[in-house]
Amino acid sequence: MSSVLIHSLKGLVLGHPRRVSGKNMADLPQLGEGAFLLIEDGLIRKTGLQNERPERADLIIDGSDRFALPGWVDSHTHLVFAGSREAEFVDRINGLSYQEIASRGGGILNSAARLAEMSEEALLRDARIRLNEVIRSGTGAIEIKSGYGLSTESELKILRVIRQLKAESPIPIRATFLGAHSVPATYKANREGYIRLIEEEMLPAIAAEGLAEYMDVFCEKVAFSVAETQRLIEAGYKAGLKPKIHVNQFYSMGGIPMACSCNAISVDHLEVISNEDIEALQHSNTIATLLPSAPFFLNDPYPNARALLDAGLAVALATDYNPGSTPSGRMGFVLSLACLKMKMLPAEAINAATINGAAALEWEDELGSIHPGKRANILLTEKIPSLDYLPYRFGSDQLSEVLVGGKLFPLSQKG
Amino acid sequence: MSSVLIHSLKGLVLGHPRRVSGKNMADLPQLGEGAFLLIEDGLIRKTGLQNERPERADLIIDGSDRFALPGWVDSHTHLVFAGSREAEFVDRINGLSYQEIASRGGGILNSAARLAEMSEEALLRDARIRLNEVIRSGTGAIEIKSGYGLSTESELKILRVIRQLKAESPIPIRATFLGAHSVPATYKANREGYIRLIEEEMLPAIAAEGLAEYMDVFCEKVAFSVAETQRLIEAGYKAGLKPKIHVNQFYSMGGIPMACSCNAISVDHLEVISNEDIEALQHSNTIATLLPSAPFFLNDPYPNARALLDAGLAVALATDYNPGSTPSGRMGFVLSLACLKMKMLPAEAINAATINGAAALEWEDELGSIHPGKRANILLTEKIPSLDYLPYRFGSDQLSEVLVGGKLFPLSQKG
Repeated sequence: MSSVLIHSLKGLVLGHPRRVSGKNMADLPQLGEGAFLLIEDGLIRKTGLQNERPERADLIIDGSDRFALPGWVDSHTHLVFAGSREAEFVDRINGLSYQEIASRGGGILNSAARLAEMSEEALLRDARIRLNEVIRSGTGAIEIKSGYGLSTESELKILRVIRQLKAESPIPIRATFLGAHSVPATYKANREGYIRLIEEEMLPAIAAEGLAEYMDVFCEKVAFSVAETQRLIEAGYKAGLKPKIHVNQFYSMGGIPMACSCNAISVDHLEVISNEDIEALQHSNTIATLLPSAPFFLNDPYPNARALLDAGLAVALATDYNPGSTPSGRMGFVLSLACLKMKMLPAEAINAATINGAAALEWEDELGSIHPGKRANILLTEKIPSLDYLPYRFGSDQLSEVLVGGKLFPLSQKG
Repeated sequence: MSSVLIHSLKGLVLGHPRRVSGKNMADLPQLGEGAFLLIEDGLIRKTGLQNERPERADLIIDGSDRFALPGWVDSHTHLVFAGSREAEFVDRINGLSYQEIASRGGGILNSAARLAEMSEEALLRDARIRLNEVIRSGTGAIEIKSGYGLSTESELKILRVIRQLKAESPIPIRATFLGAHSVPATYKANREGYIRLIEEEMLPAIAAEGLAEYMDVFCEKVAFSVAETQRLIEAGYKAGLKPKIHVNQFYSMGGIPMACSCNAISVDHLEVISNEDIEALQHSNTIATLLPSAPFFLNDPYPNARALLDAGLAVALATDYNPGSTPSGRMGFVLSLACLKMKMLPAEAINAATINGAAALEWEDELGSIHPGKRANILLTEKIPSLDYLPYRFGSDQLSEVLVGGKLFPLSQKG
């Protein structure tokens, strides 16, 4: 048995044991000055104040002037991709819109063309570097989507890379199939053919190998209609995949009510939202996942997080790490954007980035808060004056240690 | 004699030897694949391509797949301060404006009250940590202002801390006196008294100890009028301090034409700018220094960099590192903001953050580009596909080595 004791903390963020919504998101359960945290065999064993502190552990860490928090849960990423898209970033500086770039064969189709040429080994090598980098910046659980394949072969290639990452990574990973990310150029005149390819070839192959937990569809004018999305969600269910849907990034076209009626685990993006969308979410268990790094990078309007919170909804935050609209996997920066650009309070942002991210991956019982029996994926901050200081000091992770499964993860930038 | 050779670079950014303006800012002189850089005794000795590469050096670094650049020159910071202001950050989330917070005794006056209580030793200790942190993120030369003192004793305290940093830091530092940052509460009914205090007590004391190179004034409705600023600039000149002026952050009120007529080295902020301001700059040698992290943090409009560049002006970029409006000293993030929010091309942003920053500190002949005889404060990137990738991948410094005076600076986060 191996044990770790972090003691004399300035504060220990316990968080909520299960998803939290609306006004309750402003509440962040904590233990104050002198708190300790005991980890045994990779799990949280006990928390308490100074007077209850255990004496012995295999590793003892002095938490003076520091805060401990649950690791970030990044419930929406596209971390397996081929190459970068900084040329399109320069195109945008020169005045092209993201949608114009996409309509010229840039964007997702650009990434798909490059991915088709890259071997599984090379994809894995690059993805592994990115995954280790986001763990160093505090991500303790993550979702990774396919969607830069757009052919059976390439989609399976991505999902097999994710399977390999699951096998070797110290943090837990959920896999999402996003074959319906865009209609590939070869099917431009035959949308029906591509949808049938997903239904009849991709989904059965994915189900046969058990390669994904979730089904995602980019429900958007430039991608798939609400009716097509619903049809694909139903096909996903038949293959054992639950829906998590890209929706309302550029337009509100009815995707949210449809996704809620299909019991989607989450609807993600929500830069544009209507009252009808909010009402549908109020009558669902669906998590509203916001990805503020994407509008930051695309100069789009940010999601109206306050409207969602004021409507009593459960909001999660994630990075959307991808080469086109968010070449960054830093949850710490997402928290800063949530506070600065979406008027979320630090406590709301922390709840959204931990327990509600866990809920968006159906992992509420296993991680996302510091409660006995949950996985000990823990952040220990640098010496900071308050928890509000974390999102305030944007652009710095401010972590002195990251524990994954109760073990110290090496933080060196060159690691 | 000690020498360093960095060879086999993917690219070596030489930059321009002296300030660059207008259309020329889109040009960034470089050597391509296989370039080398030889450093001797802390100075750049020689650059060239593979075939001219020297054979020997005391330290040899393989630059394969990496770029070398001149270190960032951060020509506008308030790095010496007491405490943080995350409570005001939360106030702003709750709906207060920066100016409302200032009018309640928050803001600069809040920092001044805390600074008065802090010892010179404690201030130095905190500032040293921040300075080392910004060097690790690539800053190779920096300006630091006073201005959280607002009394003779406290202003001198800050300037003495800066003097100590100059003595011990491996990077060159310029000191700027910003006693006219705000009118302190005790002089609220007696502005004239405070201005005379600056003229008659602070400036002579600073001149006697040789504590600053520059004079700064916050020329703004909430601070000092154009006439008061001009009077203070003249008093600064008499004490041997050249002007660098905070102006046009919230309003355009004639400060830029006045500062240009006074031969200000730079005018800094420029979130709001008129045609008259641009014309005045066109007839001056004054550098236009933009600080995009401040409007990022305050949700203000960004400076119109394109208008300045299209008017043929020399633009510099700096962080504005301070506890109220920019609790971050990362020049890498400033470059990303310049590209994403001000439509500067990566080459323009790099010129602005290096040679034009140097010009804004009258250091064009000593640093800011990679030319023989200049100081070897050099950045070596991680393995990246192109130079555009640097600002594209926002939120990551992407540096594998930082050289200061030709020596490797330790990059460990715990250093």
